[in-house]
Amino acid sequence: MDNDIRITLLGLGDMGTALARTWLAAGYRLTVWNRTAAKAEPLRAEGAAVAATAAEAVAASDLVVACLLDDASVEESLAGADLAGKDLVNLTTGTPGQARSRADWARGRGARFLDGGIMAVPPMIGVPESGGYIFYSGSREVFDAHRETLAVPTGTSYVGEDAGFAALHDVALLSAMNGMFAGVCHAFALVRNEDISLKDFAPLLTGWITAMASNLGVVAEQLESGDYTKGVVSNLAMQVAGNATLLRTADEQGVSAELLAPYMNLMERRLAAGHGEEGTTGIIDLLTR
Amino acid sequence: MDNDIRITLLGLGDMGTALARTWLAAGYRLTVWNRTAAKAEPLRAEGAAVAATAAEAVAASDLVVACLLDDASVEESLAGADLAGKDLVNLTTGTPGQARSRADWARGRGARFLDGGIMAVPPMIGVPESGGYIFYSGSREVFDAHRETLAVPTGTSYVGEDAGFAALHDVALLSAMNGMFAGVCHAFALVRNEDISLKDFAPLLTGWITAMASNLGVVAEQLESGDYTKGVVSNLAMQVAGNATLLRTADEQGVSAELLAPYMNLMERRLAAGHGEEGTTGIIDLLTR
Repeated sequence: MDNDIRITLLGLGDMGTALARTWLAAGYRLTVWNRTAAKAEPLRAEGAAVAATAAEAVAASDLVVACLLDDASVEESLAGADLAGKDLVNLTTGTPGQARSRADWARGRGARFLDGGIMAVPPMIGVPESGGYIFYSGSREVFDAHRETLAVPTGTSYVGEDAGFAALHDVALLSAMNGMFAGVCHAFALVRNEDISLKDFAPLLTGWITAMASNLGVVAEQLESGDYTKGVVSNLAMQVAGNATLLRTADEQGVSAELLAPYMNLMERRLAAGHGEEGTTGIIDLLTR
Repeated sequence: MDNDIRITLLGLGDMGTALARTWLAAGYRLTVWNRTAAKAEPLRAEGAAVAATAAEAVAASDLVVACLLDDASVEESLAGADLAGKDLVNLTTGTPGQARSRADWARGRGARFLDGGIMAVPPMIGVPESGGYIFYSGSREVFDAHRETLAVPTGTSYVGEDAGFAALHDVALLSAMNGMFAGVCHAFALVRNEDISLKDFAPLLTGWITAMASNLGVVAEQLESGDYTKGVVSNLAMQVAGNATLLRTADEQGVSAELLAPYMNLMERRLAAGHGEEGTTGIIDLLTR
């Protein structure tokens, strides 16, 4: 099973540990380091080499994967390490700006740099059917050189040479997900005190969200063409009129409308500016400073 | 093609007209009425009988479908009609409370009452593969008696004897959809000014939302059991920590965080109340007065 490929992994939180196990299971020669050494012990038992310092761990492999608490931890942990000639793959959560700065910093120390944004929670790692994957951006050479290795824990999606793009894609998808869950919370709040089976209600919600999210390509086309009326079936004027029923229903059911209000306010602002024939894409203009 | 079943339809907006065409195409004997008479002319050419008044239209059939502007229009339009012995199916958009009051009003006038909430836009009517459907609630007898007729324009889903439940389901799903689109707007705002193909980005967004909405049954189980830690993989404490990256990224990209803020505020309130080990279901408690 041993495949003679060496990897160093820095950071053994839940995610780092999940990643480590997939590489060990695939026969990689894994060296690990964690600030709190005790977390490395179970992996030692599973075949990992445990380094006493981050510098020692970095020295053990040409490919160094960091999955640390935050961007500051990356700088701090690697302060004493010799990165010259290394390929540094940074899976630490951060902003696009942090990834771009970290890329410059790594290049300045002689390393090639690839950033990653993990679209999965630890239980999805090593489970191909979970649908999880990691966005990668930065050095295409690093991505290509280690493609198979990077594909061991979960899916991969390379999104560009700009080191910030992986984090940007990651944050954009998580932000959209938060909006969706905010809407879901409001929906459950509306029905929870009625004689309605929540187990029957949940799949209705899933089905509707899935159907309505199925063609976001229309929004992309509108933004790219600048014509926000293209393909609109329910226009802004109609939607704003419909909002009154949503707000009145929240009131009837004793549910706060705080999660609905900001989007409705933006719809009204865009309508007041004379864009009643558009859909809701114009709201994107209002969000951008 | 004529099937001898009579229906009366009140209201010929885009939705009423789309419904009418499916019944005409299926050979029903359709009588229509609209406040603005000119809108009925195309349907007359397609075989509909056009009534001069709503009362005359109601007199023509035992099954009367109303698809009017709002609840007040239903009362006003039917003021002079004899509803005794009629089955009134109200597809007019409204709140659960309006549907319940309208049910009482209809029963007081001798009619059986079924309310509907349309989960479709007009172009989806008559297109089975569109995934559209109508929630029905109120008289089970009316639903059963006209099941086939009601299934002609689009799918049907009966959700209970409470006349308000169709509107409640409708509004709950639309509210969740609004949240999802709010998140989608924020996501597009983050990436739109970068060298990122929006047409490539859109399906990534669709895929992630679809995956994350696939098991809302967990939320239902948590609400029904009262144990909000059940099945949690990314707990509230971790999610609140992650929000900082979302907010910082919005700031880096010059995007207002106004659509994200209310949900994040509720997450923080719930965390501050000592529920860091839960997921986000506790937010539903905070929304209910």
